Amino acid sequence: MPYRAPVEDYQFIFDHVVGLAQVTATDRFSETTPDLTSAILSEAGRMCEEVLHPLQRNGDLHPAHLENGVVRTSPGFAEGYRAIAEGGWVSIGADPAHGGMGLPMTLTTAVNEMMSAACLSLQLNPLMTQGQIEALEHHASDAIKDIYLPRLVSGEWCGTMNLTEAQAGSDVGALRSKANPNGDGTYAITGQKIFISWGDNDFAENVCHLVLARLPDGKPGTKGISLFIVPKYIPDENGAPGRANDLSVVSLEHKMGLHGSPTCVMQYDGATGWLVGEEHDGMRAMFTMMNNARLGVGGQGIGAAEGALQHALAYAQERKQGRSPVENGTGTIIDHADVRRMLTTMKAETYAARSIALACAVAIDMQTATGAADWAARAAFLTPIAKAFGTDTGIAVSDLGVQVHGGMGYIEETGAAQYLRDVRVTAIYEGTNGIQAMDFTARKLMDGGEAAHALIDEIEAQAEGARAKLPELAEPVWQASETLREGLDWMLGQSDLTQRFAGAVPFLRAFARVLGGHYHLAAAIAEGGDGPRTRLARFYITRLLPEHEGLLAHATAGADDLYALSPEDLSA
Amino acid sequence: MPYRAPVEDYQFIFDHVVGLAQVTATDRFSETTPDLTSAILSEAGRMCEEVLHPLQRNGDLHPAHLENGVVRTSPGFAEGYRAIAEGGWVSIGADPAHGGMGLPMTLTTAVNEMMSAACLSLQLNPLMTQGQIEALEHHASDAIKDIYLPRLVSGEWCGTMNLTEAQAGSDVGALRSKANPNGDGTYAITGQKIFISWGDNDFAENVCHLVLARLPDGKPGTKGISLFIVPKYIPDENGAPGRANDLSVVSLEHKMGLHGSPTCVMQYDGATGWLVGEEHDGMRAMFTMMNNARLGVGGQGIGAAEGALQHALAYAQERKQGRSPVENGTGTIIDHADVRRMLTTMKAETYAARSIALACAVAIDMQTATGAADWAARAAFLTPIAKAFGTDTGIAVSDLGVQVHGGMGYIEETGAAQYLRDVRVTAIYEGTNGIQAMDFTARKLMDGGEAAHALIDEIEAQAEGARAKLPELAEPVWQASETLREGLDWMLGQSDLTQRFAGAVPFLRAFARVLGGHYHLAAAIAEGGDGPRTRLARFYITRLLPEHEGLLAHATAGADDLYALSPEDLSA
Repeated sequence: MPYRAPVEDYQFIFDHVVGLAQVTATDRFSETTPDLTSAILSEAGRMCEEVLHPLQRNGDLHPAHLENGVVRTSPGFAEGYRAIAEGGWVSIGADPAHGGMGLPMTLTTAVNEMMSAACLSLQLNPLMTQGQIEALEHHASDAIKDIYLPRLVSGEWCGTMNLTEAQAGSDVGALRSKANPNGDGTYAITGQKIFISWGDNDFAENVCHLVLARLPDGKPGTKGISLFIVPKYIPDENGAPGRANDLSVVSLEHKMGLHGSPTCVMQYDGATGWLVGEEHDGMRAMFTMMNNARLGVGGQGIGAAEGALQHALAYAQERKQGRSPVENGTGTIIDHADVRRMLTTMKAETYAARSIALACAVAIDMQTATGAADWAARAAFLTPIAKAFGTDTGIAVSDLGVQVHGGMGYIEETGAAQYLRDVRVTAIYEGTNGIQAMDFTARKLMDGGEAAHALIDEIEAQAEGARAKLPELAEPVWQASETLREGLDWMLGQSDLTQRFAGAVPFLRAFARVLGGHYHLAAAIAEGGDGPRTRLARFYITRLLPEHEGLLAHATAGADDLYALSPEDLSA
Repeated sequence: MPYRAPVEDYQFIFDHVVGLAQVTATDRFSETTPDLTSAILSEAGRMCEEVLHPLQRNGDLHPAHLENGVVRTSPGFAEGYRAIAEGGWVSIGADPAHGGMGLPMTLTTAVNEMMSAACLSLQLNPLMTQGQIEALEHHASDAIKDIYLPRLVSGEWCGTMNLTEAQAGSDVGALRSKANPNGDGTYAITGQKIFISWGDNDFAENVCHLVLARLPDGKPGTKGISLFIVPKYIPDENGAPGRANDLSVVSLEHKMGLHGSPTCVMQYDGATGWLVGEEHDGMRAMFTMMNNARLGVGGQGIGAAEGALQHALAYAQERKQGRSPVENGTGTIIDHADVRRMLTTMKAETYAARSIALACAVAIDMQTATGAADWAARAAFLTPIAKAFGTDTGIAVSDLGVQVHGGMGYIEETGAAQYLRDVRVTAIYEGTNGIQAMDFTARKLMDGGEAAHALIDEIEAQAEGARAKLPELAEPVWQASETLREGLDWMLGQSDLTQRFAGAVPFLRAFARVLGGHYHLAAAIAEGGDGPRTRLARFYITRLLPEHEGLLAHATAGADDLYALSPEDLSA
């Protein structure tokens, strides 16, 4: 089942919905011409279609496995990775000083999404490397940068993130890994890390681990954590991989999906590491990397959604079943209203999630280019929505994809179930979607709601502008944003964060729902109120947007009823 | 991770929510005393806890497989099946004339649900046999009944349903299997059937297939289909399994879950079969069996939900992580509001789905006992809701169970993901949930909405009665039922069924939402407005019930916008 890169959709959203032009109008991104953007999308798209997508099933059927302590990757993954590296797609956003192209995050987001749609388990590898590049660019010494960055950017080396330990998951501060100074400027890293995505592979010259550990004088909790770069092979004086470091892959997890991505338990036995950033300041460096990684994971969800949609749409157009219930039907199941409802939902949700992610990327780019605080606030505010709604959409759309297939959806050989199994983890890793929602309702409202209100103001301004020409689309969006504002004010009124957290997930989702309406309306406006995007907007605004009311009722119910029920009350 | 049968919940719902007493007050079910009910629940519950649940992981880790044409079942399944058969749990509802206990469907529903929670893949086996028993009781000749029923009821033999063919899924009428009269009263059955759950096993003496096929003079479509019983081994003059019939298992499907249940491609090569019911009247017999099987599949969803809830609740109470955000917290993740939100949602949804299924079962029992048309209509009306909402709840609750586990939820060894993978098929088989919703909005409204309005009247009457004492619970339920009535009237106003079908799934869900509110309110009333069930009702009514408004907006949007978008509009 082929994958077709949705290049036109990115281009449309760039041009008419999120305003890539304001990014490329800055000095920082002035080299990103329309021609370059177009070439990037089509070249990356072609690689995804031709090279990566044929590997998708391999990853599932022939999982990465451990062989004498070495990870053996799925058939074809080495060639797929080579295509990514040679095309320069590991990190098109990296600093040109180290071999990158310095392109906007907006383009990176689109390219990452296409690679995710084509082969999610392999794409997770460069996504991890991208995060490492970013952390090193911002926090590493020049000596480290000079050794690692060119090789990571070129794809010769890969990067990983090592946060989690058995007792330290969402609570990173509970980690026990130790770092002892060796007296020569290096550190001896000791401890065990779990859930390390792509902790090893058999196609890169070196695998470089960013590891959180505690120095002997590090305080308990997150404030005593430092960040280290710990390579599989220690670079020699020329930067070439030298002797093997004292680290190993202990085992791989057996997961629900994403079998092509080796999830490793990593053991560090006094492995040599180099400090990145300041001592005890590791969390700050980690957050640099995590924020954009969160957008990246949101993009994984959207990619999976796109893949599942295309897969289901193709099946629905070829599966003959029953008499056509409509005149001039095709005789396939796409003639059925309920199948159309599912497919149209998949399309409308994918577009909404994609627009949110790209709007977040534009805000990051504007922050990078201008340093303006309002763009930084916008980027920070949209990141948890992009992550949680993008991944929830990936799961929901893949689930609909299974349903469109009927009985065949449950049979693995069709590949529909793989999308669902693969994407399921994206709601969990890089901060669960519950953690995203807590971040959203606590940290991201610490400005007193300024960023949130500013965004709602924009939503209302666009809706007001469209009211005369597109009343049946603009009015519901305007009304929904007013209801959302009431929910926001309720949140801001809660000084006890537990009250917010009790409704954090539905609140984030309600915000995403309204944003989705906003971006669908933007598409209809751009189309002049007539065309397929306007029809899709009507579907979304009429059928999906109304969900926000129930979500806001849920969001603002407070925590008291939750704690009034004891664990015993919830038992059988 | 142990499973505890929720016996108290069934008992409470029997006594205070769905009124089992009216069933046991009939002559037909007068022997179902409170003591017997209690004994059935506790005995079946104990078997599920002690014998079946320990097999759950085996089914996943060691799937049923085909060995020289014979299905080899998962380790322990033979012993588990023996416990079901020897305990008399294959079919407690079967006619005592053939060895059954003649107990109400309400009890069967509870027992089936417990077995599903404990080990879904094995429970599917007796569920299929139950359907076969019912079809034979209603449609077979005495000669067939005498041979088959005692052996099916005792569990010596198993039963299967053979409807689907590669080109005939939801569209059963497209089937091509043939039946040719042999001249001796038997028929030669030829054709291939797919997706045959438990098409073979290595623990029963015989496997009896109910097969839909077309006689030489059968018309095309569903009206030319006849039903046959086709045993693996042909019974000799004493009814003992004799020579092997001309049928075989060609292959097993590789599925997303439910690995312990062999899903077979069955080949019939002139196999000897006996007609069940009249010629060309097979669909009627099949529907007898399918209706109750639909309720049974709904119960599978609810069982999986209960299992996933217990599993997640146990994990949440033992997983330490982070500082407790509340005073006097336990230090485990259950202290966190978002984890509580998930667990409480799981509990509230499971209760709602269970009450709906048991209300459906009570209606079936009243229909059986009294023959009253209004009970028959109630049973028919509730069946698609019980099936679709029960299975959707199973999926949603299992999905939340994965999320509660965080990263561990994606690792197969915890077992959380298995609930989700296993239960996913229940929204597909026995009529997809889309088919259920179409049945609900078309056939089940053919009475002009009488059954629907009668049910809404009851919801409103209870809410009105509770308004004085429990206004904050009763009022929202009353309001929601009024909104639901408006949606119903919209549906009834559409003579073009495609208009209904475009919103059928959200309409069914909205109806279930309101029914859930009704049954939660009933629990609060029974508790006198104070206690854990009242608190759970408050959670549901405040947070989940409001979803109905968005669903009804979706349900009543009509089909035009769906068909205004072409397949090309949905493509990349």
